[in-house]
Amino acid sequence: MPDLQKWEKIGAAKRAALSELIPSEFRIPQNFLPSNSQLDVSKFPEESGWFTRKELDITSSTSPVILQNMANQIWTAEEVTKAFCKRAAAAHQLTNCLSEIFFNEAIASAKSRDNQLRETGKTVGPLHGLPISLKDNFNIIGKDSTLGFTSLVNDPAKSNSTLVDLLEAAGAVLYVKTNVPTAMMIAESVNNVYGRTVNPLNRMLTSGGSSGGESALIAFGGSPLGIGTDIGGSLRIPAACTGIFTLRPSFGRFPTQSCRSGLAGQEAVQSVNGPMAKTLEDIILYSKTVIDSQPWLHDAKCLPIPWRPVVPKRKLKLAVMWNDGMVIPTPPVQRALRETVENLKKAGHEIVEWDNSLHPQAVSILSRMFLADGGKSVRALLAPTKEPFRPEMQAYADATDIGVYGMWKLQAERSELQRKYLELWNSYNGLDAILGPVTPFSSVENGMFKHVGYTGVFNIVDYSAVSFPCGVTVNKSKDKPNAEYSPLSETCQTIHSEYNPDIVHGMPVSLQLVARRLEEEKVLSMTNTILQAIVPSESVPFKLNLQPSLASRL
Amino acid sequence: MPDLQKWEKIGAAKRAALSELIPSEFRIPQNFLPSNSQLDVSKFPEESGWFTRKELDITSSTSPVILQNMANQIWTAEEVTKAFCKRAAAAHQLTNCLSEIFFNEAIASAKSRDNQLRETGKTVGPLHGLPISLKDNFNIIGKDSTLGFTSLVNDPAKSNSTLVDLLEAAGAVLYVKTNVPTAMMIAESVNNVYGRTVNPLNRMLTSGGSSGGESALIAFGGSPLGIGTDIGGSLRIPAACTGIFTLRPSFGRFPTQSCRSGLAGQEAVQSVNGPMAKTLEDIILYSKTVIDSQPWLHDAKCLPIPWRPVVPKRKLKLAVMWNDGMVIPTPPVQRALRETVENLKKAGHEIVEWDNSLHPQAVSILSRMFLADGGKSVRALLAPTKEPFRPEMQAYADATDIGVYGMWKLQAERSELQRKYLELWNSYNGLDAILGPVTPFSSVENGMFKHVGYTGVFNIVDYSAVSFPCGVTVNKSKDKPNAEYSPLSETCQTIHSEYNPDIVHGMPVSLQLVARRLEEEKVLSMTNTILQAIVPSESVPFKLNLQPSLASRL
Repeated sequence: MPDLQKWEKIGAAKRAALSELIPSEFRIPQNFLPSNSQLDVSKFPEESGWFTRKELDITSSTSPVILQNMANQIWTAEEVTKAFCKRAAAAHQLTNCLSEIFFNEAIASAKSRDNQLRETGKTVGPLHGLPISLKDNFNIIGKDSTLGFTSLVNDPAKSNSTLVDLLEAAGAVLYVKTNVPTAMMIAESVNNVYGRTVNPLNRMLTSGGSSGGESALIAFGGSPLGIGTDIGGSLRIPAACTGIFTLRPSFGRFPTQSCRSGLAGQEAVQSVNGPMAKTLEDIILYSKTVIDSQPWLHDAKCLPIPWRPVVPKRKLKLAVMWNDGMVIPTPPVQRALRETVENLKKAGHEIVEWDNSLHPQAVSILSRMFLADGGKSVRALLAPTKEPFRPEMQAYADATDIGVYGMWKLQAERSELQRKYLELWNSYNGLDAILGPVTPFSSVENGMFKHVGYTGVFNIVDYSAVSFPCGVTVNKSKDKPNAEYSPLSETCQTIHSEYNPDIVHGMPVSLQLVARRLEEEKVLSMTNTILQAIVPSESVPFKLNLQPSLASRL
Repeated sequence: MPDLQKWEKIGAAKRAALSELIPSEFRIPQNFLPSNSQLDVSKFPEESGWFTRKELDITSSTSPVILQNMANQIWTAEEVTKAFCKRAAAAHQLTNCLSEIFFNEAIASAKSRDNQLRETGKTVGPLHGLPISLKDNFNIIGKDSTLGFTSLVNDPAKSNSTLVDLLEAAGAVLYVKTNVPTAMMIAESVNNVYGRTVNPLNRMLTSGGSSGGESALIAFGGSPLGIGTDIGGSLRIPAACTGIFTLRPSFGRFPTQSCRSGLAGQEAVQSVNGPMAKTLEDIILYSKTVIDSQPWLHDAKCLPIPWRPVVPKRKLKLAVMWNDGMVIPTPPVQRALRETVENLKKAGHEIVEWDNSLHPQAVSILSRMFLADGGKSVRALLAPTKEPFRPEMQAYADATDIGVYGMWKLQAERSELQRKYLELWNSYNGLDAILGPVTPFSSVENGMFKHVGYTGVFNIVDYSAVSFPCGVTVNKSKDKPNAEYSPLSETCQTIHSEYNPDIVHGMPVSLQLVARRLEEEKVLSMTNTILQAIVPSESVPFKLNLQPSLASRL
């Protein structure tokens, strides 16, 4: 590779090494391989004939079912792990979603779980044998956490993230890490080490970011449960782009200790992590399991708040946010929200309108906080290999350090906004949640994602939020560009001028449900209530009802 | 005042105006006034003959008793309020402890409480009629919150702190605010607006800081319950200097919203507030009342953690910290800790030794965080009136803004230290608390306080801590300077060379009990357990046993 820059060589070598970690039995045979022009590869496992019936059974089951079948020794952890390794390998070959592969260690770990269960009759823990995929920034001893920086290639972690220790102690089997954008600060998943992850539902479209390796992997069925992170929408945006579920918890509910960050030590907006999965059941199972393990005993920033069961209300008071005052969502999202609201009204819920007047300031604060160090943190990670700023990161290249005095002023502005936001919420008298878009898009063509305003506001106020597929899919004849549209901003105008219903036709649309700060149990329970009120489309990976045993856990 | 600078004139005028707010009936008559050379004025109310029996009965009662007597209409809120106004006025005349006086509004408010109780038969709330004093930085509409800056004189608050609203809704009667050091960033209470607050137990000594107006007022009996704040020891140091109780909660337990700060927007070390009082009962009553009011519904940073009853353990595992690796406490504090540990062992508690190796780094981080903006926040508050930096604030005058990038590195260093501290705690296997000094001193001569290391560490890790008088008082014959003393640092050497047992003879000694983060109920319960194991001295304002009704609330 004589003409390549140092950083390009490092990226190419890492990609090759990653590819080498896929054993031959998990490489898609040439005759099964979809052509590059095949956009929807999500049905490949079911339709190709390359997977066995059992592999498909395993990899299309929810976590609770998988766990139950392993605990009952119907399935071994080894066969479950191998099935997900195979399907994850296929996902990677078709969407470029992985950043680390360690199938051998995973299978060894699964065998050891099987042995322990056989010998003692007891599972290792509540996640016994369950394969869980992790976003790249979770540290696992001996594995890279590059965050998409070439300078961090071949710098394996010397200690585990606290969450990794917790999951392993609970019996989970870790087998892959997933791709992210550079520094995890782009809303798609693209970087100079691994390149771009694409959406398995339509490879012309983005799987979102920054947890877009996870979303692609999960939407493809290559993981029953993955953990992403969210500092401006990085869980919710990729979940929405691929039609899966996620919970963005408030800070302190799930352990975040000892993870890698592109903006290390940045705390004004706290990064959180949370589960991503095809069903709400998986999300609840994970959330309750992590909290039941009392993570506050091991993570210095976790809060000692145990799992709090919720008695579901029959009639919710929901404030609908039609737009955020900055960008009107594209037509399918508008329609999805409208139809959902109609169904909720029919089911007897009370709908009021959310006052979005604080949102522009919140989004402005978010952006100023990310850029407050003048891009020095990102620059310091680019410098060792002379890697250039990616075009998506131009704002970091252009930024100036605002100084600690400036930062304190900015933090004071944010605290005052948090106070006003809570006051506004209280003024609604008994409001249960805000319902609105996750992004302006169902998904969007690779490289064209814009506006994290719908999600970022809730990072600023740190409220608990769920992104869920609402059952509506894009319909190019129903979701034509609106002639009467009047843009709220330049970004709004660009988004709508770029909107192409033909390309996103058939994509699932997600919505966002937002509860108060630290109301994770309540927002999950309310999502379940809402799912019961809306009509699902058969074409989305979407589960309407919880198992009774899980519903009662709420 | 022709020769004075502008800022000096402002200070003098504010002091005069404050003094004018004391009505003639609350001015100590000349023939009762102790001479300036009388050091201990704490017994003035009981011994002078200027107070009626009822005034003394009221002002020497605990909050639970006062509340009960008002609820039972044995005392009116009006007479309770007037009694405390009179005693607070005396405290101010003898120790210079107040910063705002609003007796008229307080008495009007008390009368309205009385009327409501008479008319409805119901108290206004759980703090019906209870006078509560507040540190200067709590905003009350129409009153100054100067933080000791002349530039903030005559800049009355336009809205209340969230805690002020909460207390008023609970029926409390607010009547005074109390003195602080400039910017609340000195461990004594001295500034260019109000001057210096002194210790009522010995006016040569400091009442500590930054909540030293509160501690002087409470130790004198001029308030049954006061609220101070703590960012490096500002509750615990003044409580220790005057032999009263306080709880430094972890951040998020009590509302801190909309208070004034000398370092506005500084969040790397969070300022918290908590109660100060003569007995543990008062502290518990307040803590439970505030948390029961669900402050998280109104303060955007409060945590939804309800009051959690604690079943007291018979045998505690306590790690004693003999010194913090930086400063060996002065002889009376050494002896108090030794005797307390002996009594705890006799009572069957397990005592191990705390590893202080992380403390110097923690204290270094604390200091760097306070100075991170290069003193610009303080400078901006001094500039409008050309007020000079006080000598105690020289570090702020000399500091340089470290930039946001530097701040993020510092925050990352702190987070790693928090992780290690928790790991260390866990390595003790079942540890309940750390027991150690609050400061190197019982109290110390005005202007000579040094070293906030014993308290500041727990602001960095944000653990819950109680400062309590341990029943030991300084005895100049027992507490002679130790000939074999070998200093740990220059500060240590200075402190010990300045130590004068004659001056502090008779002063109460306090100790600090520290539980994990957000274990407020547990640390209060453990303090009660410890009080039962140690022998109180009759000479300190100190209560050994909780009322049964309160003990059961733990």
